[in-house]
Amino acid sequence: MYTVADYLLDRLKELGIDEIFGVPGDYNLQFLDHITARQDLEWIGNANELNAAYMADGYARTKGISAFVTTFGVGELSAINGLAGSFAENVPVVEIVGSPTTTVQNDKKLVHHTLGDGNFLHFEKMHKEVTAAIAHLTAENALTEIDRVLTIAMIEKRPVYINLPIDVADFKVTPPLSPLSQSVEKLTDVETAILDKVEKALSQAKNPVVIAGHEILSYHIEHQLDEFIQKFNLPITTLPLGKSAFNEEDPHYLGTYSGSTTEEPLKNRVDTADLVLLLGAKLTDSATSGFSFGFTDQQIISIGSTEVLFYGETFEAVQLDRFVSALTTLSFCRYEDEIQPVTRISSQAIKDEKLSQKQFWEMVETFLIPGDTVIGEQGTSFFGLTNVALKRNMHFIGQPLWGSIGYTFPSALGSQLANQASRHLLFIGDGSLQLTVQELGTALREKLTPIVFVINNNGYTVEREIHGATEQYNDIPMWDYQNLPLVFGGNDQTVATYKVTTTIELDEVMKTARKDTKRLQWIEVVMDQEDAPELLKKLAKIFAKQNS
Amino acid sequence: MYTVADYLLDRLKELGIDEIFGVPGDYNLQFLDHITARQDLEWIGNANELNAAYMADGYARTKGISAFVTTFGVGELSAINGLAGSFAENVPVVEIVGSPTTTVQNDKKLVHHTLGDGNFLHFEKMHKEVTAAIAHLTAENALTEIDRVLTIAMIEKRPVYINLPIDVADFKVTPPLSPLSQSVEKLTDVETAILDKVEKALSQAKNPVVIAGHEILSYHIEHQLDEFIQKFNLPITTLPLGKSAFNEEDPHYLGTYSGSTTEEPLKNRVDTADLVLLLGAKLTDSATSGFSFGFTDQQIISIGSTEVLFYGETFEAVQLDRFVSALTTLSFCRYEDEIQPVTRISSQAIKDEKLSQKQFWEMVETFLIPGDTVIGEQGTSFFGLTNVALKRNMHFIGQPLWGSIGYTFPSALGSQLANQASRHLLFIGDGSLQLTVQELGTALREKLTPIVFVINNNGYTVEREIHGATEQYNDIPMWDYQNLPLVFGGNDQTVATYKVTTTIELDEVMKTARKDTKRLQWIEVVMDQEDAPELLKKLAKIFAKQNS
Repeated sequence: MYTVADYLLDRLKELGIDEIFGVPGDYNLQFLDHITARQDLEWIGNANELNAAYMADGYARTKGISAFVTTFGVGELSAINGLAGSFAENVPVVEIVGSPTTTVQNDKKLVHHTLGDGNFLHFEKMHKEVTAAIAHLTAENALTEIDRVLTIAMIEKRPVYINLPIDVADFKVTPPLSPLSQSVEKLTDVETAILDKVEKALSQAKNPVVIAGHEILSYHIEHQLDEFIQKFNLPITTLPLGKSAFNEEDPHYLGTYSGSTTEEPLKNRVDTADLVLLLGAKLTDSATSGFSFGFTDQQIISIGSTEVLFYGETFEAVQLDRFVSALTTLSFCRYEDEIQPVTRISSQAIKDEKLSQKQFWEMVETFLIPGDTVIGEQGTSFFGLTNVALKRNMHFIGQPLWGSIGYTFPSALGSQLANQASRHLLFIGDGSLQLTVQELGTALREKLTPIVFVINNNGYTVEREIHGATEQYNDIPMWDYQNLPLVFGGNDQTVATYKVTTTIELDEVMKTARKDTKRLQWIEVVMDQEDAPELLKKLAKIFAKQNS
Repeated sequence: MYTVADYLLDRLKELGIDEIFGVPGDYNLQFLDHITARQDLEWIGNANELNAAYMADGYARTKGISAFVTTFGVGELSAINGLAGSFAENVPVVEIVGSPTTTVQNDKKLVHHTLGDGNFLHFEKMHKEVTAAIAHLTAENALTEIDRVLTIAMIEKRPVYINLPIDVADFKVTPPLSPLSQSVEKLTDVETAILDKVEKALSQAKNPVVIAGHEILSYHIEHQLDEFIQKFNLPITTLPLGKSAFNEEDPHYLGTYSGSTTEEPLKNRVDTADLVLLLGAKLTDSATSGFSFGFTDQQIISIGSTEVLFYGETFEAVQLDRFVSALTTLSFCRYEDEIQPVTRISSQAIKDEKLSQKQFWEMVETFLIPGDTVIGEQGTSFFGLTNVALKRNMHFIGQPLWGSIGYTFPSALGSQLANQASRHLLFIGDGSLQLTVQELGTALREKLTPIVFVINNNGYTVEREIHGATEQYNDIPMWDYQNLPLVFGGNDQTVATYKVTTTIELDEVMKTARKDTKRLQWIEVVMDQEDAPELLKKLAKIFAKQNS
């Protein structure tokens, strides 16, 4: 019998989903049967629901979309912070919440996983704040509602929520007759008008600069952006919130722009541009060192999926993918000035000494190879990586806007499942790892092979830099990081563990880890509690001021 | 300088709070300074925010109220499932959310930990669904709003939410002039009318029975209930959602009533009562084996803090503490029939064999001593413990209505911090432990000494019983449970670890653990994947039917 559950899963497959994440619960078990019965979908059980949401977010960032399943009430609320992060940073994740039967809900029964008040709408209502669309499926609306919200997820690149009463999952329906409607390629009249204004501005600009942001990654339009840049020979930078939106080895790339903390000559080049063209970018505090960019509204044209701005004036938002594709159709004179490319660190002989943050991130830069996926936890790692020059075909994942610590560990695992061919390098601090560590069990069960650098500097370094350097609240319990994988199910076949404290040790382990492609590489990196990347030190002062 | 932060902390101290839980974040650091500066408050940092909420819930269940601190957005949403559980089960927890400065919020800045849309009200709005009151503090309203929501928490025994912009925390104010207004002792006219009706019903009843529920525990009115029962010699039972609301060693106690799964003669005694007087009790599915109680509306008087029912007719709710206190003032004839007390398992010689669920829970019953606090994770453990006869002065913690797995581990730690004199015994399955395991670091850092029984039966047994006994989605990664504490910072001084598979081994370890009062006792108990407590087997069938 073909059911609503099958229809939903067929649609998810159609969108490119091969793995579904989540945690079982007694309001979703029958739905899970439909997943495990299929040869073309794999169920990836998570240790908890927040981790499932994070893992789905990472998967979607790499594969384009993802789905995870929770149970009603307890499961969905545990995951909601993950979904909010996907919403903030434009990542299309589909959450399917198995809920009590239609009869139980209509009869307002006092069943478990509710507030005991007979009201089954509390949690849906909460999700409205952090999703692009909500569907509450019934036997009557199931197919149209599934199609509606999945289309929104694909077009808006934001999470959607499907409440699936467990009886509705098994309701008999007919399979889809046609594919999900695809996004229209033709520009709207409003978009055409905006495009004309962009063309005019670019043709008049003497020293324009393009700043690419995270929505380029959300829409996976790096290639379209690249065509535009090459055609008109434009200088381009990315924000930290959007790093890897453009090939950092390309000669048009100027480096990562982060406001007042940006290194020269990039800072001056951007700040003095007569046109700053933002594409899918948001000038958030963490991306611009507390709004310290040196340009003004009068220099900015900003094209985004939620807002379009011309010199401070707001216009209707565009659909970013078709708009960026259309940029290559513009006609204006190719930019001819010389572009100052990003400076790169060259490999050099390493002096044997205790590892500092500065040395560590320099060694990381030379460690990267094209095709790697790099994930930086919001904290020391993200700020350490911001100015690391990436290589071609690399994908960078961070979460600087939402900034939920612990996010990157499950996210890195999800991304690796989405692209097993890319070596995944995760950089995460001890404080952050503690929030989501149990997903190590999933990593080992799934035989995932990321290289994980656990930066052990005894607490919340990013918070110490902002406030309370030696306060007790920035301390965390000291764990035996090196041996964690062994209690979470790891063994010699699945994981290699290391602990390094010096440059030479790190250099050796890096070489070994790069070659050992069949096992998870777990490297505890010990650094001083007081040490931090330069960018973080500067930014922390700005954040401290923002709080006063 | 005396500030809003100091005022809030003084009020929390006044309510009996000595420890505050939470996770630091850059919108709460300055507030945390006010906590760590005090000699009379201790900051307990948690590994993540959901665990902080759970730990606060356990602390409040034992101590009467609790508080925890998160940061804006990411922190509060990570914790919200914990707060929802406190709301569902009537536990007064105060969440303090450090938020961006008033200026940043008013200027709609695109700062981190927001959705990037300049709207700072999304998360407050979400919290309205799962709290009794919300306060958004300003320099003008801070003192009155703090007093208002704390009073609501104390009267309604439900969580409240305080949004504290970080600049407001440091605003200069004057200390409280008078204590928080206490709940009025005098009954309202409505309450008096209800009391009269209860008196009349009891004086006419031939074979009444009292069912005590979880709100007796929420209001900490076990003593007042006991006075009432003793004075009128009434037979009493508790629901699983409310276990330990009455001394289970008292001769008036009939056992735990759980609907159709209740053992005889208790089941018949309750079902055939001409008056079933529910006090602070909710007839939820998990407390009554899927609403399978044998009595009808025509037998029920239900007195609760959110609803009062007389034979199916709804009346205005009462304030439960003063109402139950007033029950002793009633005048009707003392009940004279013989009361059949609960049967208890006596210690007996143990046959050496592989541990079964049946034997395990029998051995647990004889292991208990007066004064213990027993915590049962929703799953095998809760259902195994439901029919375990407790002893006097014991406190039982479970979460059968909200039923969020993983809850009990942090909750047990919180409860133990609230009452270090009581030995805490936690029973938790492997599947549940995986959700919140990182709080082991906190347990060891704080040198807490619960006896933790980790039931290793290879997966989600409660789900297997309901649906999909051998399905992959009910499997979990196999961890090395016995050695977990050692990587989370434990050593010979702080923890003793054991693994038992037979009755004799368990018996020996139980004796050793009981005597070893200075260290955490960590006991992995291996049982068959297919084995489950009888009650769970029956209930799972009922839940499976409820889902069809």
